[in-house]
Amino acid sequence: MKLKVYADRLSQPVRAVIIFCEVNGIDYEEIKVDLANREHLTPEFAEINPMQQLPAIVHGSFKLFESHAILIYIASSFPGVADHWYPADVYKRSKIHSVLDWHHSNLRRGPTLSKTESFWLDDNRPFLLGQNQPSIADLILVCDIMQIKLVGETDWNRLLGPYKKVQQWIENTRNATNPHFDELHKVLKELKEKLQN
Amino acid sequence: MKLKVYADRLSQPVRAVIIFCEVNGIDYEEIKVDLANREHLTPEFAEINPMQQLPAIVHGSFKLFESHAILIYIASSFPGVADHWYPADVYKRSKIHSVLDWHHSNLRRGPTLSKTESFWLDDNRPFLLGQNQPSIADLILVCDIMQIKLVGETDWNRLLGPYKKVQQWIENTRNATNPHFDELHKVLKELKEKLQN
Repeated sequence: MKLKVYADRLSQPVRAVIIFCEVNGIDYEEIKVDLANREHLTPEFAEINPMQQLPAIVHGSFKLFESHAILIYIASSFPGVADHWYPADVYKRSKIHSVLDWHHSNLRRGPTLSKTESFWLDDNRPFLLGQNQPSIADLILVCDIMQIKLVGETDWNRLLGPYKKVQQWIENTRNATNPHFDELHKVLKELKEKLQN
Repeated sequence: MKLKVYADRLSQPVRAVIIFCEVNGIDYEEIKVDLANREHLTPEFAEINPMQQLPAIVHGSFKLFESHAILIYIASSFPGVADHWYPADVYKRSKIHSVLDWHHSNLRRGPTLSKTESFWLDDNRPFLLGQNQPSIADLILVCDIMQIKLVGETDWNRLLGPYKKVQQWIENTRNATNPHFDELHKVLKELKEKLQN
């Protein structure tokens, strides 16, 4: 019963799910749903996800969509996913829900960067919520922030410049999940070059 | 170690949290933070929730905000909360995360009503996701939809009219959580009367 991940790597939550699967050695199959070709709007894909959004997964007869729910499902049901990704401890777990929900309601990136710097990142710890290792929240937020790269290095430097802790945290998350992190973000570089030509 | 709930009943996620506490016999204290008086923007409240939004809870030394995270925390850490509110079963639980996350990203109410009618509600079951008893997802979504009542009966009837299953489901959720449901929604009626005078 192989996990099927319906994906287009141009989507940031898709990248988070694929990086998560790779880092944790999940046996999965990536099934491309080309957003540019509007493949997510076909009746075939509506059978997979009636909301016609990516990512979505199918695991045996079980279908699921929404990236946070997918990451929690994989972390909870596949053996071998280290506890730090989605801790069993109710307090740590609740804080992960809180940062994910907060991010869901605050998709404007300015406040996200500012509040992440001033509140979610502890001075002396490499990851969100004072963790020494990344959780699904680090992955979701960093993959979202990486989308800024698409608009170019100038904007990236201008937007990220004031936030030293955020910069270090992105690098920490990248290091903790490489080579998969860089591999999955190649698509941004390629798209940017395509848009510039 | 009594649970403190920072609340203004004019907020729909606040109402969901209070109804949940009442229905489940949680020993809690409601602390009013008057949104109209901008009490959520005070430095004192920033100590409770740096994002300065409601609801927020404090439980001993543990602070938490975001209504979904709060409901999951209470369901997971207080004894006596029935399983149907936040099932231990990983498949059922994942579906609850999915509907909550989906709702979080789709706050426009037209699509919410339409997709709830056509997808989330099974023909023969009283609650979301084919459950016979309500979950935290029923409570969050119904409390949000109830906010439409504020604009008046005409809009309510026009917006809800086409959705027979949604209407029945609201009634099911109300019945399953009364008298607390009606008690918490009194504030909408009062505000509407105030606005009309």
